[in-house]
Amino acid sequence: MRRVGIIGAGMTKFGEHWEHGFRDLVVESGVKALTDAGISGDKIDAGYIGTMASGSLIGQEHIGGLLADYMGLNPIPITRVEGACASGSLALRQGFMAVASGLHDIVVVGGAEKMTDLGVSAVSDILGGAGDQEWELFLGATFPGIYALMARKHMQEFGTTEEMMASVSVKNHSNGAKNKYAQFPREITMEQVLGSKMIADPLKMLDCSPITDGAAGVVLAPMDMAESFAKEPVEIVTSAQASDSIALHSRESLTELKATRVAAEKAYERANLTPKDINLAEVHDCFTIAEIMAIEDLGFFPKGQGGPASLEGKTKLEGEIPINTSGGLKACGHPVGATGVKQAVEITWQLRGEAGERQIKDASVGLSHNVGGSGATAVVHIYKKS
Amino acid sequence: MRRVGIIGAGMTKFGEHWEHGFRDLVVESGVKALTDAGISGDKIDAGYIGTMASGSLIGQEHIGGLLADYMGLNPIPITRVEGACASGSLALRQGFMAVASGLHDIVVVGGAEKMTDLGVSAVSDILGGAGDQEWELFLGATFPGIYALMARKHMQEFGTTEEMMASVSVKNHSNGAKNKYAQFPREITMEQVLGSKMIADPLKMLDCSPITDGAAGVVLAPMDMAESFAKEPVEIVTSAQASDSIALHSRESLTELKATRVAAEKAYERANLTPKDINLAEVHDCFTIAEIMAIEDLGFFPKGQGGPASLEGKTKLEGEIPINTSGGLKACGHPVGATGVKQAVEITWQLRGEAGERQIKDASVGLSHNVGGSGATAVVHIYKKS
Repeated sequence: MRRVGIIGAGMTKFGEHWEHGFRDLVVESGVKALTDAGISGDKIDAGYIGTMASGSLIGQEHIGGLLADYMGLNPIPITRVEGACASGSLALRQGFMAVASGLHDIVVVGGAEKMTDLGVSAVSDILGGAGDQEWELFLGATFPGIYALMARKHMQEFGTTEEMMASVSVKNHSNGAKNKYAQFPREITMEQVLGSKMIADPLKMLDCSPITDGAAGVVLAPMDMAESFAKEPVEIVTSAQASDSIALHSRESLTELKATRVAAEKAYERANLTPKDINLAEVHDCFTIAEIMAIEDLGFFPKGQGGPASLEGKTKLEGEIPINTSGGLKACGHPVGATGVKQAVEITWQLRGEAGERQIKDASVGLSHNVGGSGATAVVHIYKKS
Repeated sequence: MRRVGIIGAGMTKFGEHWEHGFRDLVVESGVKALTDAGISGDKIDAGYIGTMASGSLIGQEHIGGLLADYMGLNPIPITRVEGACASGSLALRQGFMAVASGLHDIVVVGGAEKMTDLGVSAVSDILGGAGDQEWELFLGATFPGIYALMARKHMQEFGTTEEMMASVSVKNHSNGAKNKYAQFPREITMEQVLGSKMIADPLKMLDCSPITDGAAGVVLAPMDMAESFAKEPVEIVTSAQASDSIALHSRESLTELKATRVAAEKAYERANLTPKDINLAEVHDCFTIAEIMAIEDLGFFPKGQGGPASLEGKTKLEGEIPINTSGGLKACGHPVGATGVKQAVEITWQLRGEAGERQIKDASVGLSHNVGGSGATAVVHIYKKS
């Protein structure tokens, strides 16, 4: 197994790109990543692209072939992978495996979703495909509803409050306000979150991540080659993926995501690290309760302590363990297939010291955590400054 | 790189499974493959599943998570890959890479599609997602129309005739009649093909592969472990993938699929074999003209000679190079995501001598060839009897 580094990273602004299509977004992020790496397309050996629902959202499948074409990379192989909202991290993981194994040297990894071409109701139906349609969504459940069940149980078991959840949103908006790529780069207050429209009790509008267009890309290379490129590479020290039942009703617990816990355990073990070694993390805050569960399941706080830790500011930029410096899914936006790759882009910028106003001082080890649906898939990557 | 073997193979009957859902089909093929391998689920380290358009066809994405759940395999990682009609072969390729690299030992690979729950018109629109929607399909092109353009050009350049194309269909139905898993296990005549309804001139109904439900699965293991399982493993000696422009208008030639040619060249080179070493092949006959181009692009016949070779019977079971012993996409059926894995299942059965009435005598080297859309992706695998 070879050591793998990120040698280039780039992304589009996340938001409502009514003037740009899926292809434009993918090409923009891909070209930015290649430019950042200081290499030309003819150096690329293979590619992976994560997208959840391009078939339903824009009528286009075969995204690997499309990307090879529009990036001017054919005949190299490009493969689409899909794992709902974890599609981007799964693409990163396939790219990592391709380089680590020695099968390919330079691999481009993209993530993209174009979600705003349809109405909100249609998009919500399509996002239902991330969960168990036949046993949950087709019967009337919604994703806010599913996470609301987890939130209620978390409140009941651990005394987690609506204020604790709201504090996650306030913190992520504060970070997003320092990120020019964020969909909602502005601060919000606790009162605004608590007073926002109820979506699925106890989750309100400002507890929920938005519908977003966007794309992100990274370029991977073996660490022993990476030193010959434009910038210091950021090493991906491990990649771990785990699964759980797709429907909530089959799970032993509603207050943890088993897939997150298992993937994190594997990641720490392989990297020979503990949660205390992590300087910052991008975690999957599709809803505020998801971030609270994530920081527990990833081992940053004991189970049940994620809410108080958030309210006390322990996850802020200047806190014990800064979480979602990019603004997270909540403020940076959540183009589902792009999110996992965007997390890698943010960690890359942080570990290179290029994160501007939201830079974490002396950051040398980062973690990203990406969840598919309500937790049937979770993917954890750990990164190190070289 | 470790040597990789297929230690188990299984598939559902291909056809209209109105009484079974997507999950049932995947589980049936997966259990058959595991049973054939003589191993239990707890031996599996990871999985890959190929499906093209489950989101649009049945409203369900996140197929990796779903499969891990319904196969009783969670928390192991299962990942969906998509490359239109080549999705199954891409899943096989990811599984091959995972085992070859040493990252995983036992990997289950599935391919599945449930297509008959919607009407033909809706399914045709969804299949359009395999091509360039924005420049071809949305503007009125259809897949039969796109392949009809290639057929007309092939007829003009090389004198290929409608009879030559029809002979492919007659031969594949003759093979399919010997396959209990085939959707249309019955012989047809040249007159029936030529007299069938015109779909896109010169392609008639019986030049076209059908809409099908079905699933197929294989179990992979390193060759040095494979000997400890129930049956002699079939080695996958190489896996190659290439891409081309997604729209026809950007291609240099309409009478070859560049992606097939490039993937085949890579496959032969890596395996240190030539087309003459191949004893039988499953190729992508989504339309009869596609098989004629494939047997040329794969090097079995010179460019322009695929039509005469077919008419002369050189690709029959008893011919020089038996093509599509399973019945191919035409007679066995084409559940798009399943096809690539079904090809691997057929080659496995042939190389083990388990293909019954359609068995090729002394077959020791087989090849499978799977195409996405009109050729933006092509995947070639070569297999050897151990």
